[in-house]
Amino acid sequence: MRSYTGGLWTFGRIIDRYATNGYGPELSTLDTIALAGESGQLSGLDLNYPFDPDVSVADVAKAMAAHNLDTVCVTPVIYDRGFRSGSFTAADADTRRRAIELAHESVEVARELGAGYVKFWPGQDGYDYPFQVNYGELRAHAVEAMRDVTGNFPDVQFGIEYKLKEPRNRLFWSTAAATLLAIEDTGADNLGVVVDFGHSLFAKENPAEALTLVHGRGRLVDIELDDNYREWDDDLTVGALHLVETLEFLHVALQLGWDSAFKLDLFPYREAAGDAVTESVETLKRLEAIAAALPMDELRAAQDRHDAMAATRIVRTALLANPQ
Amino acid sequence: MRSYTGGLWTFGRIIDRYATNGYGPELSTLDTIALAGESGQLSGLDLNYPFDPDVSVADVAKAMAAHNLDTVCVTPVIYDRGFRSGSFTAADADTRRRAIELAHESVEVARELGAGYVKFWPGQDGYDYPFQVNYGELRAHAVEAMRDVTGNFPDVQFGIEYKLKEPRNRLFWSTAAATLLAIEDTGADNLGVVVDFGHSLFAKENPAEALTLVHGRGRLVDIELDDNYREWDDDLTVGALHLVETLEFLHVALQLGWDSAFKLDLFPYREAAGDAVTESVETLKRLEAIAAALPMDELRAAQDRHDAMAATRIVRTALLANPQ
Amino acid sequence: MRSYTGGLWTFGRIIDRYATNGYGPELSTLDTIALAGESGQLSGLDLNYPFDPDVSVADVAKAMAAHNLDTVCVTPVIYDRGFRSGSFTAADADTRRRAIELAHESVEVARELGAGYVKFWPGQDGYDYPFQVNYGELRAHAVEAMRDVTGNFPDVQFGIEYKLKEPRNRLFWSTAAATLLAIEDTGADNLGVVVDFGHSLFAKENPAEALTLVHGRGRLVDIELDDNYREWDDDLTVGALHLVETLEFLHVALQLGWDSAFKLDLFPYREAAGDAVTESVETLKRLEAIAAALPMDELRAAQDRHDAMAATRIVRTALLANPQ
Amino acid sequence: MRSYTGGLWTFGRIIDRYATNGYGPELSTLDTIALAGESGQLSGLDLNYPFDPDVSVADVAKAMAAHNLDTVCVTPVIYDRGFRSGSFTAADADTRRRAIELAHESVEVARELGAGYVKFWPGQDGYDYPFQVNYGELRAHAVEAMRDVTGNFPDVQFGIEYKLKEPRNRLFWSTAAATLLAIEDTGADNLGVVVDFGHSLFAKENPAEALTLVHGRGRLVDIELDDNYREWDDDLTVGALHLVETLEFLHVALQLGWDSAFKLDLFPYREAAGDAVTESVETLKRLEAIAAALPMDELRAAQDRHDAMAATRIVRTALLANPQ
Repeated sequence: MRSYTGGLWTFGRIIDRYATNGYGPELSTLDTIALAGESGQLSGLDLNYPFDPDVSVADVAKAMAAHNLDTVCVTPVIYDRGFRSGSFTAADADTRRRAIELAHESVEVARELGAGYVKFWPGQDGYDYPFQVNYGELRAHAVEAMRDVTGNFPDVQFGIEYKLKEPRNRLFWSTAAATLLAIEDTGADNLGVVVDFGHSLFAKENPAEALTLVHGRGRLVDIELDDNYREWDDDLTVGALHLVETLEFLHVALQLGWDSAFKLDLFPYREAAGDAVTESVETLKRLEAIAAALPMDELRAAQDRHDAMAATRIVRTALLANPQ
Repeated sequence: MRSYTGGLWTFGRIIDRYATNGYGPELSTLDTIALAGESGQLSGLDLNYPFDPDVSVADVAKAMAAHNLDTVCVTPVIYDRGFRSGSFTAADADTRRRAIELAHESVEVARELGAGYVKFWPGQDGYDYPFQVNYGELRAHAVEAMRDVTGNFPDVQFGIEYKLKEPRNRLFWSTAAATLLAIEDTGADNLGVVVDFGHSLFAKENPAEALTLVHGRGRLVDIELDDNYREWDDDLTVGALHLVETLEFLHVALQLGWDSAFKLDLFPYREAAGDAVTESVETLKRLEAIAAALPMDELRAAQDRHDAMAATRIVRTALLANPQ
Repeated sequence: MRSYTGGLWTFGRIIDRYATNGYGPELSTLDTIALAGESGQLSGLDLNYPFDPDVSVADVAKAMAAHNLDTVCVTPVIYDRGFRSGSFTAADADTRRRAIELAHESVEVARELGAGYVKFWPGQDGYDYPFQVNYGELRAHAVEAMRDVTGNFPDVQFGIEYKLKEPRNRLFWSTAAATLLAIEDTGADNLGVVVDFGHSLFAKENPAEALTLVHGRGRLVDIELDDNYREWDDDLTVGALHLVETLEFLHVALQLGWDSAFKLDLFPYREAAGDAVTESVETLKRLEAIAAALPMDELRAAQDRHDAMAATRIVRTALLANPQ
Repeated sequence: MRSYTGGLWTFGRIIDRYATNGYGPELSTLDTIALAGESGQLSGLDLNYPFDPDVSVADVAKAMAAHNLDTVCVTPVIYDRGFRSGSFTAADADTRRRAIELAHESVEVARELGAGYVKFWPGQDGYDYPFQVNYGELRAHAVEAMRDVTGNFPDVQFGIEYKLKEPRNRLFWSTAAATLLAIEDTGADNLGVVVDFGHSLFAKENPAEALTLVHGRGRLVDIELDDNYREWDDDLTVGALHLVETLEFLHVALQLGWDSAFKLDLFPYREAAGDAVTESVETLKRLEAIAAALPMDELRAAQDRHDAMAATRIVRTALLANPQ
């Protein structure tokens, strides 16, 4: 049975640059966990760290247990005001050190919570303007930081979630291939990739191809799902727009033998978080069942011929309802 | 019973700037019509004019009749070498005159073939570089030409197919709203819009919203279907990528009472044209049946609340197969 | 002498969905005005309303005067949590009424501050998902609200700043042409368009063409400048990326006789606001001088021929420094 | 003294899917070489092979010599009708073999012409539809073919020009990082990357960063220049739109010690090829002089701080003319 996990942020208060008073009221860490638990759809959470100042890791562990939630991973918040101009690649050496310290701290938190891995999403590592940075140095800092962290905790699994942009206009860890190339430069065995369907889509990749590439190099750490209009990380519910490509992504995940959970990365600005999660899970269940039932011999034969029309017909027939 | 029509170009020899020897062999006008007829899917064709030099309009009429094909519309070729730097808006007055003459001639051909309308797709009317044109004059030429043609044939229906770009980097008739605004400036009653789903998609419109807008002003002349990756006019088969938005487009067409044919605008570079047409028609049939069976009261209630999750659930449930 | 104005938001605390603790500290309305004044570059401000709860309009008037700042316009905040699912087009009638009330209130504030116009940027009026709204009704609400507001204050000038998306994935007032079409439907003489260079750019318009179109219909209310990567409203400093198109935009503004200020719309997330404003103003001064010195006879002759290479050479020669 | 080279295609007859009768008349290989020579701007050409059927390699060598043109590289035509569904990665083994044979043959031609390298631009290697191919197999074929060709000619330099799409909707050799990753998988020392500024731009890379990355791994084979609107390979003249990013690209090339020619990749559909080349070369000369004169200590200091405003000011001051 497939299980589903999610980001804690989906249930928290969402803010953007216009609704600076938030799309909803403030929520404490523990209340947010409670909301996630009450959605009744998820077996685990991706937890941003630090938590609220007055909340201990033990408090969080207790809350997670109370809601039967596993900690999928701990994701240090290396993208808020303290790291507004970069974390691991900041110009300022002190900031880089702070980022690494927070990474180390996150490892300890992850251990205490029994998390499967520590996730880095270095959303401020990059630049905004031409001529702003020396690209070689940016890269050197990024690789060096990953070497430090992974080298200090050789028994811990780390994953990088790549994204082309936002909040920086250009991020260093931008695409699957760029991320793999830099990861391989670190020489670390315990560093892999979190493939987010939506990030892949607006990076102008084909998500199913990106997934194949990452898995083929033994670097697949986790899979996130969502949807968008191919230009920005809209974090819409799964399948809202790209049903065929989501189906192909799931099909490839099945072919690769992925039997862990699928994680949701949603930002339901104006929707009830629980509704967005339920809609996404229901879509995923339906799509995974369809993927699992695809006539594989026929499909493989079509793919062996690169026969787009045959493949499309197979997929269309399997995917669409047949109203009488 | 819904019928389907198509562009003659789908069955012809497709060329691009790399495969300058074509993706297939040369084909005469009459052979192309025969291929379209043999596809067995279409009730009519959008015919580019002029035809082969040695083929008369009567020959074409005969070939169309022989294959039970109606002439949906005649589309003058105002975008080949003779109009490479513009047709109705060319800098050169002679070229503008030639475009108008060809338009007049196309009206006669359309009459002879019993076509429903004359279609203009002014694919070379625009510009490529900043500072290349005076925008006011470009607009004046575009509006003036449409006034001339529609004024000369007040009993003939004309339609403009808008497109953001290609082959020019920027086209004058770019979006639904820009096209409506200029059409209304002509003051002509017999000039409307051909809405192409794919053109709308990569112009960053929502095709269903564009269709509503055009119809709401009484300017909807025809509907074309295809698909693309939202950046270019890829002319893929219907539903290849954007099933949800195609379904919404059909849903809106049904709501607006569209009971004419749906026209296909496909460029099957590497596929058998007949296969691409069949795949598209089969997808359209399935999608239209799904659209027609949507629970309208429930959907309207969700839309009245702007309730994205409810609307998405309704659509997902109706759209996706339910494998046991 | 050209003057420059700006948005108050440029000097305030910027937040996004990741740095939810802001890219800088909280700032009061009056302190933000003081910062804008101290930049020493601006003659006026676009003021978001409401102000801080404890600040009166008279306080603001006093602060503006103390810094020699005019009120360019008042922009009601119809895009924060209170309007998270729409303002003038919200599903909920009470919310629509609140939006209109805030608009009316903004007119009074604008009068008290001697503002040139009231600006609407309906950033939550639109939708996020296919099937979410009935497009005809969305449009009806948008047009109706503008009729109400403009009809109630026939002596006040109003301007709509269009934008393709953000924060909604799709906004109703999306492009220059779509905005003009709906404005003309209102029948109001006192409603026009604020053309933002960056918004135009990522709506896949050519900003200079959009400016020509809006001015040509007598609807140009104000001009805003900034820059972006053509996919999102990055609000970078002027000319950071698109020097040629910014130059063309200024050239067209000069040709149209625009002698009011140029307004800046910047979001300097990680930069000192004053630096971003200074950099933009310096760039604008240089570009405007270059635009004013373009050899107009030569350029017009090139444009009369649609001669891209001649026009490009003229522009390149005028634009680029000639290092010895 | 910098020299400039170009693609033979710039001077040939350009065709697209609409102007199937070409944007100009047919031209023989030798006449096209003559035109390139007569432009007076270029020291060498990138030659597509095969040539016209009746033209020998010796004829070409003689024509090139007569116009003082070097052969920069030979580029086998693995993207015309014979390879319409793929070359090195075609489904069909015979087609793959034909592609490799043509590659081998191109090596011989390159030797005879004294070319610097053999270039592969596998523009049909990829796919168009979801589910069309097995991505692992596509990759295996691509890597295998490069291993074969580079292994058979260990003393010959090869370069791959990556491109995100066109003519296929998705190409295998898509981005700098994806290309480097696959090249490193081949284990070949004599296989590198041709970085095309425009390809990089619409692949959503920053071209200067891509150049740094490729050079940093010792894989930089050649540099091509052009411009576009960031969504498609428009192949406009250099600097037509993106002056700042072109300047940064040249700046990085200078910093990396690139002292070979800059190659132009232009498609002047509606312009005289010689004019487009002259405009591009003049722009490049001006921009390179500006790049060479940048105040490097100041710029480096700004980059060390990631100081966007300081860097932008330095660049703006150096780049823009200062009209009195």
